[in-house]
Amino acid sequence: MNCWFTELQTPDLTIGCRVRKILHHEVTPFQRLAVYDTAQFGRMLTLDDVIQTTIADEFVYHEMITHVGLNAHPNPRRVLVIGGGDGGAVREIIKHPSVEKATLVEIDAAVIKAAKEYLPEISCALDDPRVEVLVEDGIKHVKEHRDNYDMIIVDSTDPVGPAVGLFGADFYRDVFAALTADGLFVAQTESPFFNRDLIPRIIKDVRDIFPLACLYLACVPTYPGGLWSFTMGSKKYDPRQVDVTALPDLATRYYSPAVHQTAFVLPPFVAELVQER
Amino acid sequence: MNCWFTELQTPDLTIGCRVRKILHHEVTPFQRLAVYDTAQFGRMLTLDDVIQTTIADEFVYHEMITHVGLNAHPNPRRVLVIGGGDGGAVREIIKHPSVEKATLVEIDAAVIKAAKEYLPEISCALDDPRVEVLVEDGIKHVKEHRDNYDMIIVDSTDPVGPAVGLFGADFYRDVFAALTADGLFVAQTESPFFNRDLIPRIIKDVRDIFPLACLYLACVPTYPGGLWSFTMGSKKYDPRQVDVTALPDLATRYYSPAVHQTAFVLPPFVAELVQER
Repeated sequence: MNCWFTELQTPDLTIGCRVRKILHHEVTPFQRLAVYDTAQFGRMLTLDDVIQTTIADEFVYHEMITHVGLNAHPNPRRVLVIGGGDGGAVREIIKHPSVEKATLVEIDAAVIKAAKEYLPEISCALDDPRVEVLVEDGIKHVKEHRDNYDMIIVDSTDPVGPAVGLFGADFYRDVFAALTADGLFVAQTESPFFNRDLIPRIIKDVRDIFPLACLYLACVPTYPGGLWSFTMGSKKYDPRQVDVTALPDLATRYYSPAVHQTAFVLPPFVAELVQER
Repeated sequence: MNCWFTELQTPDLTIGCRVRKILHHEVTPFQRLAVYDTAQFGRMLTLDDVIQTTIADEFVYHEMITHVGLNAHPNPRRVLVIGGGDGGAVREIIKHPSVEKATLVEIDAAVIKAAKEYLPEISCALDDPRVEVLVEDGIKHVKEHRDNYDMIIVDSTDPVGPAVGLFGADFYRDVFAALTADGLFVAQTESPFFNRDLIPRIIKDVRDIFPLACLYLACVPTYPGGLWSFTMGSKKYDPRQVDVTALPDLATRYYSPAVHQTAFVLPPFVAELVQER
C-alpha cells in the first residue's frame, strides 16, 4: 500500500510513515486525534497530526522522562504526570516500589480512551490500583496543590495549542509550589537542533525558580531530528550526583544506570544553550 | 515554495526537506548526484536520493567519525579516508597536529567536484598540502597497501550499490593489513534502530579480525532515526581508556572530551546488538 502519514515537523521538514491501516480518527474538544497502524513503527498516536508515541520507539521517551528523575530522588512516593494520557510515563513510574500513588492529569479524555483501546502495551498501567487518572487542566491542578508531590513530570505536546501554558515561568512557579520540600520536576523540552530559542528560555525560567536546573538528552527516532531534550528543576537532589552503582534493575531498553550519567553530557552545540547568560 | 526532496529512509519511512533551489544534478558513472539548497539544513548533497551531508548538521557526523579514533591513538601520522569525497572528514583530521598526511580515496570524482563547488565549508581542506586526493576504488587501495596507515576511516554510503564491499569481512581483513602495528579503523555502520541485523554482523566480523572491537553513537538529524552508529576496530589502543583530561581543544560543536567517553555508553537495546554470541 502506498498510503502515508506525513508530519510537518518544522515548516521545512517532514517525516512520513507508511500506513497499513487508519485505526481511529476524531476531533476532540481539544485537538485532532488519530491512531494509525504504520509499517515502520507499528501503532502510532498523533495529535493535530504530530506523532506523540509509537509502539516501536515509545520506550525511549517514556523511560527517559521518568527514571532519571525518579532515581535522582531517594524516596519518591507521590508522582504527578501532566499530559501523558497514553499512560507510558505512568507505566514506568510504578516500576519504582517507593511510589505509593501516581496521579495522571490529562486534559483530553479522548487520549486516554484511544490509548486504552489501541495502545494497551503503553496504557496497561492506567488501571493499576496505585494510579489515579484525572481528566482536568494540569495548569489548574498544580495551582490547587501545595507541597504535595515528590516528582512532577510534564509529558506535554509541543508548545502550541493546549500545551502553551506548560512552557512558561508562571507554570514552573506553580510546579515548584506543588512539590514537596525536596521535590523535583522533569519536562520534555523539544529539540536542541530546532528549538534553539525555546530551550534557553526554559532553562533560564527554571533556574530562576529552582536551586538546580539542568538539561539532559535522549534520542527518539520519531521526534524531529531524533535528539530530544528534557529539563529538570530540583529543590534538593542533583541527578548527576546519584550513586548509579546502587540503582535497581528496572528492565529498561534505553535507560540504564550508565545512560543516566551520560544523558547529562551535552555536546558543545547543546551546552551553549544552557549556559548562564 | 512547495518543492520537496523526499528520501525513502527505509521502505516504510521518509524524510522530506523543503527545497529552495536545485543547485546541481547529474548521473555519474557510479550514482545519481544532486545538490539542493534546503530551507531547513541549507545546502545538501544526495547520492542516489539519499542524504549524505548538509551544511547545518554535517558537524556531528564528521567530528564523530574522526576525533574519537584520532584521539584514541597517541600519534596518528598517516590517515586514510575511504569515501568521504565531500571532504568533511579530512577537514577534521588535519586539525590534529600529529597528522602528516591525510589520504582521501573516493571512487567518484563527481562527488569531490560537487563538494568543492557547492559545499566549500565542508570541502575546504581538500587543497591543503597535507591532503592527498585519489580517485580510485577504496577496496583496491587497502589491498595494495600494507602496514601503512595509523588510522583508516570508512566514510561510506549505505551498504547498497558501490559501498556493499565496504561492509564485509574480506575488506576488514585488508584494512587490518593496511594499518600499522598499533593502528585502528572507524566505519560508519548505520542505525541501531533500523539496521539491527547489520550491526551484529559487522561487530562479529571486526571482533574476529581485531583484538578490540567496539561501537559508539552520535545523533545525526538527517540520518534515519537520528541515532547513528560507528564501529571501531583497534590493534592496540582502547578508545575508552583515553585520558580525556589531556585532550586538546579542537573547536568542535558535537565532539568533546566528555562526549568521547559517553559515546561508548550504549542503551541496553543497542548493547544487545554487540554482545558476544
